[in-house]
Amino acid sequence: MDSNNSAWSTPQQAEQAFYQAFEAGDLAAMMQVWDAAADICCIHPMGKALTGPAQVSEGWAGIFSSGQSLEFTLEPLHWQVQGDLAVSVLHEHIRVRGETRPRPPMLATNVYRRRGDGWRLWLHHASPAVVEVSPDPAMPAHLH
Amino acid sequence: MDSNNSAWSTPQQAEQAFYQAFEAGDLAAMMQVWDAAADICCIHPMGKALTGPAQVSEGWAGIFSSGQSLEFTLEPLHWQVQGDLAVSVLHEHIRVRGETRPRPPMLATNVYRRRGDGWRLWLHHASPAVVEVSPDPAMPAHLH
Repeated sequence: MDSNNSAWSTPQQAEQAFYQAFEAGDLAAMMQVWDAAADICCIHPMGKALTGPAQVSEGWAGIFSSGQSLEFTLEPLHWQVQGDLAVSVLHEHIRVRGETRPRPPMLATNVYRRRGDGWRLWLHHASPAVVEVSPDPAMPAHLH
Repeated sequence: MDSNNSAWSTPQQAEQAFYQAFEAGDLAAMMQVWDAAADICCIHPMGKALTGPAQVSEGWAGIFSSGQSLEFTLEPLHWQVQGDLAVSVLHEHIRVRGETRPRPPMLATNVYRRRGDGWRLWLHHASPAVVEVSPDPAMPAHLH
C-alpha cells in the first residue's frame, strides 16, 4: 500500500491494514481498506447492517469518536481463499488501554474481494463471543 | 437434491435447504447442507465458534432438542458469488409458533463453497440484530 488508491496484493495484507486502522482510530486509513462500492456491508457487535461507503464510514466515525485506545490480539480461526473472494473468521481479543482486564472477545467474519487492482474489504460482521450464556427462554440466544 | 450425497447446483438452493432444515428441526437434513469437512464453522447468536462436523452437528442437535417450532421470514441484504465461494448476508425474522409476537431479528452471514459435486454450506455466523427493522412485506423470501 503505497498510494491512496492502491489495494492490497493479498487478503491477509488487507486484513492487517484493517486492524491497524482500527487500533489507530484512523478513519481515512480504515476507509481505504474498504472497497468503495455500494454493496459493502459492516455489522458492528449488536448493531444493524450498514451498507455502502457513507453508512460504513459514519459507523466507524462513531466508534472512533469515543477516543478509546484499543489493542487487538487476533486469533485466526479459518481462512478460505477461492479466486476473487476470501473469508477470514477470527476471534478479536480487545483491550482498552487504561483498563486492567480485557474485554470479552468478539467473533468476526471478514470477507475480502479482489477487483482489478487488488484486495479490499467487502464485509465485516462482528458479534460478541459470549461463551458462557445462562439459559433464559426470553433471550434470542435460545432460538438459534 | 435427490440423494443423500448430492450437493446443490446453486448456493441459493443450498441456502433454501438450510432454512428448510432449520424450520423442520431436521438434523439429518441440516447436516446434508453442510460440507462434511474439518474446516466448516458455525457461530450461533452469542455462541462460540463450532468447528468441524461433530461440533456443528452437536450444536444443531442442542437447538433442535428445545422442540420449539420456528417460522423464518428471510430478508436478503447482500449476495456475492465469485467462482467457488458465495456469501449471503440476511436478516432472519423468526417467529416461534405459539407466540404472538416475533422475536428480535438476527443477522446472518452464510458462506457457501463449491466443490466437485456442487454447493454446500461452509460458514454460518449469526448474531442478534437488536435494532428493530421493518421489512418491506413484498421483499422477504417467505419459506411458507
